[in-house]
Amino acid sequence: MAQERLSISDVLVARKRITGFVTNTPLRKSHWMSDVSTAEVWMKLENLQVTGSFKYRGALNAMTFAKERGLTKVFTASAGNHALGMAEAARTTERETTICLPTNVSPIKKAKLEMFSVGITQHGDDMELTEQYAARLAQEKKGLYISPYNNREVIAGQGTVGLEMYELVPKLSTIVVAVGGGGLISGIGLVAKVINPKVRIVGVVPAASPSMRTAVQSGHVVRVMQHDTIADGIAGNIDPETITFPLVQEVVDEWVTVEERDIRQAVFDFLEHEGMLIEGAAACAIAAISSKYVEFKPRERVGVVVCGGNIDRSTWREIVGEQLLSAGKV
Amino acid sequence: MAQERLSISDVLVARKRITGFVTNTPLRKSHWMSDVSTAEVWMKLENLQVTGSFKYRGALNAMTFAKERGLTKVFTASAGNHALGMAEAARTTERETTICLPTNVSPIKKAKLEMFSVGITQHGDDMELTEQYAARLAQEKKGLYISPYNNREVIAGQGTVGLEMYELVPKLSTIVVAVGGGGLISGIGLVAKVINPKVRIVGVVPAASPSMRTAVQSGHVVRVMQHDTIADGIAGNIDPETITFPLVQEVVDEWVTVEERDIRQAVFDFLEHEGMLIEGAAACAIAAISSKYVEFKPRERVGVVVCGGNIDRSTWREIVGEQLLSAGKV
Repeated sequence: MAQERLSISDVLVARKRITGFVTNTPLRKSHWMSDVSTAEVWMKLENLQVTGSFKYRGALNAMTFAKERGLTKVFTASAGNHALGMAEAARTTERETTICLPTNVSPIKKAKLEMFSVGITQHGDDMELTEQYAARLAQEKKGLYISPYNNREVIAGQGTVGLEMYELVPKLSTIVVAVGGGGLISGIGLVAKVINPKVRIVGVVPAASPSMRTAVQSGHVVRVMQHDTIADGIAGNIDPETITFPLVQEVVDEWVTVEERDIRQAVFDFLEHEGMLIEGAAACAIAAISSKYVEFKPRERVGVVVCGGNIDRSTWREIVGEQLLSAGKV
Repeated sequence: MAQERLSISDVLVARKRITGFVTNTPLRKSHWMSDVSTAEVWMKLENLQVTGSFKYRGALNAMTFAKERGLTKVFTASAGNHALGMAEAARTTERETTICLPTNVSPIKKAKLEMFSVGITQHGDDMELTEQYAARLAQEKKGLYISPYNNREVIAGQGTVGLEMYELVPKLSTIVVAVGGGGLISGIGLVAKVINPKVRIVGVVPAASPSMRTAVQSGHVVRVMQHDTIADGIAGNIDPETITFPLVQEVVDEWVTVEERDIRQAVFDFLEHEGMLIEGAAACAIAAISSKYVEFKPRERVGVVVCGGNIDRSTWREIVGEQLLSAGKV
């Protein structure tokens, strides 16, 4: 039996579940991006979310769903923000949680997760293998597998970002979102299209890993050659069966691909103009605007999601150091 | 006739006036400062407030008060965050506003203010003279003078920071606040002492400009020799008649003085650990904790106010550049 279509009701249920735990993050006007674009640009600061990214929303919604159904054992796969979100949600919902990490995960990220009361196991040298392993493990142990994006509750949880944006700035006519597995843009897109059917949803992918854009262009998920990118949060191939694919097909109106140099520049410029360090994935959405890859109507209201702030110490130091050096500042 | 004592009711009235305009800024746990201090440290992020500092709260409350009383002409003196807050509040409340700047104000700050619909005039080469001039101007023109700190509505507005902190973390037993003219610590202190009479309020001043601490030690406001500091937002001598003086005497339990090197280090460390650029005044409060100038009970709940984020481009670049250079990163 096919499941019912995901709808804004699922997002409203998600919001009810996660309110009081997640931060209703600020939506701030960016004078810098407004000047650059001649639009009125509003930033949703999910870099200030608990765990430093929007991922806590979807994770907590999925885990609370598990709790409501009396499911005690939960499995997931992630080396990044979804893992952190799940670890935090495990504490909130008291579910027995196992997180599968790829074998090549950075020791720092592993150590960070080990500070939570979650089980940790390692398998596979890329995320696809790790995800498959976690799903298999869940089946064997009669637990619930929660994918970082291919999961109804995860998508609905991410959709709460869209609700909060429209509550503060009801006339948003364009929303710019970075796309990896597509959970965030699916959730926000389905909310936005109900509230304003004419809204334009712009998906941004890094040139080094344009998996979802390539899938949409091909009409189905295809394997994409992956290159190094500082936008690690949205890099990698995606689950061929993911339910985000048809959702993304439906809600995304325009695509932008950003190069590594754009992303790095956006990290620096955001620090300079907005005073915050953001991770590469978030900088993709910023770069789409600051590098003028999107056209705007004068003064139209634009929302851009600053999806996370978890940038490696060495990465930001390198980017900022380079820029200050070239400006003759050090 | 003496005015009634300022009380928590004034803060509640202020909150009603400014809600919907000011941002209820996030109160985030700092893992970094919690680790350093063994306390549980919560940061109130007023660097994310509209205009980049808490000053918008007091300014908007005072301007709305003026509007309620049909006062159309308003005068103030400030070269920094209070001026920005007033300029923004002038737009919200549609008051005819004149801002007096010192003659040595930076061209960038002046240009920023000129983008608002406010009158700008310059007088005096230090803030005391500029404040006196603005007050005199208000009297001549039959307008209302709104001091950056010596004003009941301004203090009550700043007090809303304290309300928001206690709503999210009710068990705060220590609150750390940087002190210039004393408006912020007076407002927060009077709220906190009502909610938790045992709360410890810690005031932090820069060694280069410890005006309020020296006043309290002397039993009255005295002129203090001023030195250069990056904490420009809380530097300068204070109005000898300021109503904040007796309030500060009453609510502040402990004083900390931080050196320039502590403040600069705190700017860098905050960027590294919390991902945000903050101004020198805010870094004073952070430095009091990160440099271990305050003793805490294990796990006690501590609130620290990150009062603003308006740091000069050249200042942060210099601080960050120096640190990266000494770490061999550039």
